[in-house]
Amino acid sequence: MSKPTLNSSDLREWEKLAAESAPGGKVENLVWTTPEGIDVKPLYTARDVAGLEHADTLPGFPPFVRGPWATMHAGRPWTIRQYAGFSTAAESNAFYKRILAGGGQGISVAFDLPTHRGYDSDHPRVRGDVGKAGVAVDSVEDVKALFDGIPLDRVSVSMTMNGAVLPVLAGYLVAAEEQGVSLDRLSGTIQNDILKEFMVRNTYIYPPGPSMRIVADVIEYAARRMPRFNSISISGYHMQEAGASQALELGLTLADGRAYVEAALARGLKVDEFADRLSFFFGIGMNFYLEVAKLRAARLLWWRIMKGYEPKNPKSLMLRTHCQTSGWSLAAQDPYNNVVRATIEAMAAVFGGTQSLHTNSFDEAVALPSDFAARIARNTQLILQEETHISSVVDPWGGSYMMEALTREVAGKAWEVVEEVERQGGMVRAVESGWAKRRIEECAAEKQARIDSGRDPIIGVNKYQPDDDPPIAVREIDDSAVREVQTARLEELRARRDSAAVAAALGELTETARSGAGNLLEATVKAVRLRATVGECSDALEKVWGRYRGDAPVITGVYGMAMGEDRGWRGLKAEVDAFAEREGRRPRVMIAKLGQDGHDRGARVVAAGLADLGFDVDVGPLFQTPAEAARRAVADDCHAVGVSTQAAGHKTLVPELIAALREQGAGDVLVFVGGVVPVQDHEFLRVAGVADVFGPGAPIPDCARRILEAIRDRSHA
Amino acid sequence: MSKPTLNSSDLREWEKLAAESAPGGKVENLVWTTPEGIDVKPLYTARDVAGLEHADTLPGFPPFVRGPWATMHAGRPWTIRQYAGFSTAAESNAFYKRILAGGGQGISVAFDLPTHRGYDSDHPRVRGDVGKAGVAVDSVEDVKALFDGIPLDRVSVSMTMNGAVLPVLAGYLVAAEEQGVSLDRLSGTIQNDILKEFMVRNTYIYPPGPSMRIVADVIEYAARRMPRFNSISISGYHMQEAGASQALELGLTLADGRAYVEAALARGLKVDEFADRLSFFFGIGMNFYLEVAKLRAARLLWWRIMKGYEPKNPKSLMLRTHCQTSGWSLAAQDPYNNVVRATIEAMAAVFGGTQSLHTNSFDEAVALPSDFAARIARNTQLILQEETHISSVVDPWGGSYMMEALTREVAGKAWEVVEEVERQGGMVRAVESGWAKRRIEECAAEKQARIDSGRDPIIGVNKYQPDDDPPIAVREIDDSAVREVQTARLEELRARRDSAAVAAALGELTETARSGAGNLLEATVKAVRLRATVGECSDALEKVWGRYRGDAPVITGVYGMAMGEDRGWRGLKAEVDAFAEREGRRPRVMIAKLGQDGHDRGARVVAAGLADLGFDVDVGPLFQTPAEAARRAVADDCHAVGVSTQAAGHKTLVPELIAALREQGAGDVLVFVGGVVPVQDHEFLRVAGVADVFGPGAPIPDCARRILEAIRDRSHA
Repeated sequence: MSKPTLNSSDLREWEKLAAESAPGGKVENLVWTTPEGIDVKPLYTARDVAGLEHADTLPGFPPFVRGPWATMHAGRPWTIRQYAGFSTAAESNAFYKRILAGGGQGISVAFDLPTHRGYDSDHPRVRGDVGKAGVAVDSVEDVKALFDGIPLDRVSVSMTMNGAVLPVLAGYLVAAEEQGVSLDRLSGTIQNDILKEFMVRNTYIYPPGPSMRIVADVIEYAARRMPRFNSISISGYHMQEAGASQALELGLTLADGRAYVEAALARGLKVDEFADRLSFFFGIGMNFYLEVAKLRAARLLWWRIMKGYEPKNPKSLMLRTHCQTSGWSLAAQDPYNNVVRATIEAMAAVFGGTQSLHTNSFDEAVALPSDFAARIARNTQLILQEETHISSVVDPWGGSYMMEALTREVAGKAWEVVEEVERQGGMVRAVESGWAKRRIEECAAEKQARIDSGRDPIIGVNKYQPDDDPPIAVREIDDSAVREVQTARLEELRARRDSAAVAAALGELTETARSGAGNLLEATVKAVRLRATVGECSDALEKVWGRYRGDAPVITGVYGMAMGEDRGWRGLKAEVDAFAEREGRRPRVMIAKLGQDGHDRGARVVAAGLADLGFDVDVGPLFQTPAEAARRAVADDCHAVGVSTQAAGHKTLVPELIAALREQGAGDVLVFVGGVVPVQDHEFLRVAGVADVFGPGAPIPDCARRILEAIRDRSHA
Repeated sequence: MSKPTLNSSDLREWEKLAAESAPGGKVENLVWTTPEGIDVKPLYTARDVAGLEHADTLPGFPPFVRGPWATMHAGRPWTIRQYAGFSTAAESNAFYKRILAGGGQGISVAFDLPTHRGYDSDHPRVRGDVGKAGVAVDSVEDVKALFDGIPLDRVSVSMTMNGAVLPVLAGYLVAAEEQGVSLDRLSGTIQNDILKEFMVRNTYIYPPGPSMRIVADVIEYAARRMPRFNSISISGYHMQEAGASQALELGLTLADGRAYVEAALARGLKVDEFADRLSFFFGIGMNFYLEVAKLRAARLLWWRIMKGYEPKNPKSLMLRTHCQTSGWSLAAQDPYNNVVRATIEAMAAVFGGTQSLHTNSFDEAVALPSDFAARIARNTQLILQEETHISSVVDPWGGSYMMEALTREVAGKAWEVVEEVERQGGMVRAVESGWAKRRIEECAAEKQARIDSGRDPIIGVNKYQPDDDPPIAVREIDDSAVREVQTARLEELRARRDSAAVAAALGELTETARSGAGNLLEATVKAVRLRATVGECSDALEKVWGRYRGDAPVITGVYGMAMGEDRGWRGLKAEVDAFAEREGRRPRVMIAKLGQDGHDRGARVVAAGLADLGFDVDVGPLFQTPAEAARRAVADDCHAVGVSTQAAGHKTLVPELIAALREQGAGDVLVFVGGVVPVQDHEFLRVAGVADVFGPGAPIPDCARRILEAIRDRSHA
C-alpha cells in the first residue's frame, strides 16, 4: 500500500543499534512467537506492508477489514450488552431493569443449565443446577416475567441458547406476540450455534445431524418473518475460553459459519434471504494486538468465504460481531486486577470494531456478578464510550505497519484452519470425529503448562501474589428455593392449560421431527403458545432423536511435553512411579462433572496433566448424577474422585456424591473439588467430607501432589 | 510516506454512505474538535499522511518520533515507578520496601509541603501540613532513614523537588556518600523544574530569577559529577493537572525546556555536557489518541529545538520522559471506576513510548493511596508488561493513518505555543508576566464548565451516578504525631552537631547566593554534610532573595461564556442579582488556601465560576496561616470564606480558622470547605462549625447555590 521511504541500509543501521539492547546481541531474540506460531517482530515499517492487498480500503466497503459500516463507532458507538441472568425470571427481570437504568443498552440472557439442556426445573436430574448459572425458564410464562415492563420492540434481546433453542426462542416469540409486538419489529440475537457445543461447552441435547436441522429451521423461520433479528451467533468465544489460540478460534468459527450457510442453502433458502442475519461472537483475551488483528482478519475472511456464494446484497458479505472479554483470563486471586484485564480486553474489542460488547465482572472467576461488580464492568464500557473519544475514529489502527501485518498473519493462520476443516470433510464431520475438539484441547493443555511452569505470568496468581487476599462478597443463589418456586409455577401452569391441546401440539412436533418435513420452530411455537413447557418440547424431539452422549479420549502427552524438564515435575512423576511400585497399581482418579454443567475444559486439562504424571485417570461421562458418579467410581475401584465444578452446583451435588459413596460402602474413596469455588464455600465442603479444594488458578502439579499425598496417607491409614 | 491506493471517487462513495449514518446527514458533523482546536475526523486513509515528513522513520534515530531507543520496550519495558511518600522517613521507607517486593522497579519520593517550601517541621507556619501529602524531610538524617536498606547504586530514585531542591538533593548526595556510593553511580531524577511552579503548583520559594540560577547550578553540578543522573525533569504533568490541553501542556513544557538549556549554556556549559541528562515528565489523561500523539510529537519537537544547538552527541537530541496517569481524571464518586481510567491512561503512555510510568491509585481523589489501592495501581502496569505482550512491538501505532496525522496536528499546535512564548520574550518573561498561568487557567475554566454543564460526561459523577456509594477505607496521617517525631529528631540533631561549623557553612551558602559566584549545590552539600537542616539552608538563601509572592487576577468571563445559555446557570445569576438588590451588596466570598498547599487550580476555577455568577470574590494569597486568613476575611467584611484543600491539612487548619474568626468577633462569617475531602471527614468538619463541604466533582453551580442560600439564611437570621 505504501511506498517505503526507508532503504535496506537504513534498516541495517537500525539492526546494528538494536542488537546492542537485544538478548545475546541478536535482534531475532526479540521476536515473540505466539501460540499459533506467528512471529511478532520488535519493529514494523512500511516495508512490512508494501503491496498488502487489503490495505487502504474503506470501512463499509469490501473487504470490510476497516469495519462493516462506513462510520462505525463514530456514527454510533458499539452496544453495551451485558450477559446476565440468575435465579427466577422475576429476579433477573429486576436486574435487567437496573442494568438499563445504569447505562446498559440491550439485554443478554443467561439461562440456567437445566434450561440449556431441555429439562424443566422439577426434573430429578437437575437438582443443584436450577437458577444457578443463569435464569430458570420452564415456559412462556417465565419468558413473559423475564421481559415484564421491557418493550421488546425497543429493547434488543440476545439469548445464549443452543440445545433448547426451539422452546426458548418460541417462548420469546409468543411473549412478544402477547406484548402486542409483531415479529418483524423484534431485534436481537439467538445464539443457535450448536457445532461449537460439541467441541467445547456441551450444552447440546441431540446428535449433530438433527441439531443442524434445528439450526437451519430457525434460520429459515427468522429469514421469513424476523428481518431485524440475528438468527444465529456463530461463536468462537467458547473456543477461546476452552483454550484455543486466536487463529484457531477464528478458523473454526468461520468454518462453523460456512457449515451453517451450507445447511441453510440445503434447506432451500437463497443466500441473500438469510446471510445478512448471520452474526458472530468472539472472545477477547489478553493477547492485545492479536485480538485487534483477529477482528479485522475475521471480516476479511468472511467476505472471502461469502463471495463464493455470489450474493447480490453487500450486507451478505459483512461480518458483524458481538465480543466478550475473556472469562478465562480472570483470576480468583487478587480479583480487582480483573478490572484492569477487562479494560484492556474491552479496548482491543473496540479497536477491532465490534458491534456490541460484554465486559466481564471482576468477581466472575468465583461467582455470578454482584450488583457492584456488574456496575464497574458496565462502567468500563461507559467510560470508554464517553470519556476517551476512542469512538470518534473508525478503525484507528488502520495503516499501522504492525497491525496491518498482523492482520495478514492472523488471517493466514486462520485460513489454514478453514482449509484443514475442508480436508476433514467439513465442520460437521470434523466435530463428529472429535478432530476439532482435540485441536482445542491441545492448545489448552499447552497453555496450562505455560502458566503452571510460570512461563506465562499471571499477576497475583503465579507472580506477585498479595500477602493478604481477603475474599470478596459474592452473590449466592439458593437453588432449592428457585426449584420450589419453579415447581409451583409448573404445577399451576399444568393445572390451568388445555392438556389435550398441548399433547396434540407436542405430538405434531414429534411428527415434524420424524417426518423431516415442515419447520420445527413453527411447530414448537404452536405448542408453546398452548403452554407446553421447555422440558416437554425437548422430550417430544428426544423421542425421535434420543439424547447425544459425546465421548472423547483425554489428550495425553501435550501437557507433559510442555512442562519439559521442569525439576518439580520430574520429581513428582518419580513419586507417582514409586507409589505404583509400592502399591502394585497407579493412583486411580476419576474426574467427574456432576449435573448439567458441560464446561469441561478444566476437567479435561487436569485429567491430561494427571495422566502425564502417571496417574490412572478416567474422565466420567458428562451430566452424571451424584449417584451415577459414585457407582462408577466404586465399579472402577478409584482411590479418589475429583469433582470439577464451574456452574456453582457443588454445594448441593458434592455432599450427595459423598453420601452416595458411603451408602455403597466406599466411604474411603477420597473426594476432591476443583474449579470455580468461592473461598467462602471451602469450609462447607470440608465439613461435608471433601479431602481438599482447589480454587481457580491452582497449578496442576500442586493439585497432583496434594491428591497423591492424600491417597498415600489413606493407603497407610 | 505512502502512496494512497484510494482515489477521490472512492472517497466520495464513502462519504455518500457515511452521510447516511451521520447526524443531519453530514459527515462534517462527525468531526470532533478537541479543546486545543484539532479537528479529529471520523476516517483517516493513506491520503491523510501522504508526504508526511516524519513518517516511516526509525526508533533510535532522528527525529525520534518512533522512540528514543532502537528496541524500546521490546528490549526492556518501561520502568514501573510509583510516586509515594507520607508521614516519617521510617514509614515511607517501609512502604518503599513493600513496593519493591511487589514488583515496583524504582523509587519516586513524594515530599510533604513544608519540605517543598523549605521549612523545617517545627516551623510555626507549617502546622497541619507535616507528613501529610508526602514524607517530612528535615535533614540528611531523614534522607538516610528514607533509603535505609535500599542500595542507592542499584535502585534508581526520582525526587519530586523544586523549591527546596538544594538542601534535599544535597541530602540525597550526602546519604549516598555515607552509604559508600560514589556520585557517578547514582541513577535517578530530580524534578528541579521551577518554571512550572510559578504557573501552576506554587511550590516555589524564591523569585523566578534566582530560582533559575538554582536550576542551572544543579544542572552544572550533575553534569560534572553524576553522569547517570537526570538533573531535571521538565514537567508538563502539573499543567495538565491544572487544566491545560495536551498541546498547551506540550508547548509550554518544551518552552520551559528551552529556557533551561539557555540557562545552562549561559552558565558556561557546552550543550553535550548536560543535554543528555535532561528528562521530561508528562501527564496522561483520558484523551487517548491525543495522548499517544503528544508523546510522539514531543520527541519530534524536542529534536527540532535541540538541533538548533548543534550538539555532537545524538543523545542530546532525544526526549526521554516519565509519565503519570492523570490525577485530575480520578473521581471521588464510584472510585473503582478509577482503576479503569488508570488502565486506559497507562496504555496511552505505553503506546506513546514512555520510559517510566506512575499509575495513580483509585483512592487518590480522596486521600493518599492505601496499600491495597497502591498494589492494584502497580499491578495495572505489571499486567500490561507481563500479560498482554504490548511491549513486544516498538511504536505499535507507527503508520496508523490517524495516529500519524494527529502526531503532526498536535506537534503543529504545540509549536504555535512555543513560538508564542518566544514572542512573549521567552519563558521566564512569560511566567513573570502571568501570561502562561492565564493560558492554563482559561483552559481549566472552560473544561470545568464543560463538565459542570454535562457536555463532558464523567461516569459516576455527572452521569450514571450509583445509588449507593459507600466510602472506601482511606489512609490517614496524624500530622501532629509526625510533627512531634520530627521536632524531637531536629532537637537531637541540633544538640549533637557542631553548631559553629554549621553556621559558618550556612554563611558561605548565603555568600554564594549573594556573590553570584560558585555553585549553590556544592555550597549546600557542605552545609548539609555538617547537618544543616532543610529550613536552615532555605533561610540562608532567603536572606539574599526573600520569599516570592505570586499574585494573579482571577480569570473572569471564560467559565460563564462556556456555560452559555444554560437555564439553571441563568436562573442562579438572577438570584445573585436579586440578593445584591436586596442587601445592597453582592454576596462576598474569600477563597482561601491555608498552609503550604499551593495547588490552586480548584480555588481559582471556583473563584472564576463564582465571579461569573455575580459573586464578589477574592482569592486570598497562598500560604496563609488560619489567623492571617481570618484577619483578611474580617477586614474585607466577607459573608463567607471558602477553604480549598488539596493536601489533607484541613482537619487541623479549618478548626483553627473558625476559632480565629470567633476570636475576632466574626463568628458569623460562614466557612465552607471544598476539594479533596474524604467523606469520613465531613462530619468532623461540620461539628467543627463548617457550614457545608463540597467534595471533588461537585459542580460549581451547585456549590454556588448552596453558598448563596446559606448566606441568605444567615442574613435573615
